[in-house]
Amino acid sequence: MATDTSKYSFNHTMLRVKDPQASVKFYTEILGMKYITKHDLPDAKATLYFLAFVDAVPESQKEKLKLAFSHSGVIELLHNWGTENQPDFSYNNGNKDDVGRGFGHTSVLVDDLKEACKRLETLGVKFHKKPTEGGIHTVAFIADPDDYWVEIIGNPLYTGENPL
Amino acid sequence: MATDTSKYSFNHTMLRVKDPQASVKFYTEILGMKYITKHDLPDAKATLYFLAFVDAVPESQKEKLKLAFSHSGVIELLHNWGTENQPDFSYNNGNKDDVGRGFGHTSVLVDDLKEACKRLETLGVKFHKKPTEGGIHTVAFIADPDDYWVEIIGNPLYTGENPL
Repeated sequence: MATDTSKYSFNHTMLRVKDPQASVKFYTEILGMKYITKHDLPDAKATLYFLAFVDAVPESQKEKLKLAFSHSGVIELLHNWGTENQPDFSYNNGNKDDVGRGFGHTSVLVDDLKEACKRLETLGVKFHKKPTEGGIHTVAFIADPDDYWVEIIGNPLYTGENPL
Repeated sequence: MATDTSKYSFNHTMLRVKDPQASVKFYTEILGMKYITKHDLPDAKATLYFLAFVDAVPESQKEKLKLAFSHSGVIELLHNWGTENQPDFSYNNGNKDDVGRGFGHTSVLVDDLKEACKRLETLGVKFHKKPTEGGIHTVAFIADPDDYWVEIIGNPLYTGENPL
């Protein structure tokens, strides 16, 4: 039995999304991730979308999937076909008491929190918490199109100080 | 206004956990992550635990937090003090219809899926899906102590083939 976990690595976080067009737009245009590829699951009537902070996306679908399943910190979005046309449909973002909390958020590191938040405000992004609000002023929380929380944090490698 | 997102990167996925001792044991001993550090939030009566696949953990708390807030693919566990002593307390793992689905899972890449699953079975880990079950035989789903799903996938860089 292999007991060696030294080649193990973190891959992705999967979130179900109502409208993949809106979500892909958010994670690429607002957060700056690259859209890697999608993969249809016809039996499940669903499609997976893969996004990540990568320098470049290869051309072939084989190389795209290889990247999606080897990179650390991929966002995998699962779209169950048709939900985007159901006005009352929404997913649980994990932060609502009345439907049970659990998952909290994903987080994105930026080089300059103040500048990043200024840009996000200009782009009309919804904030759950601005840096000036609450007890911890070194982070912000924004909402993705399904109201999943995304924490925005200054990367200490750029800011020179830890957020906590 | 800075519009440049080129220095942005993915940091962590936050999950609320009932019993941090059980969760830290799972993510380190079962999945092979390193425990980086914890950080108390006394005002919120909560503690954050940071884990990731890293080669080494630095000695000082300052360097540990710097690592936790610069690495890609960190797991941040939030423990609200006292939940571990409430027998009926549990979090929503995002995959239960009756409390609203949303978050799906995190995923860990392994060098050999079959060997990894053999090891996980020997360790008594709960499986939501073994590779031989369901339509896709290239992945498994296991449960962490809060029943959050963790997908286990063969890393194409080691296996030579994509899981999809």
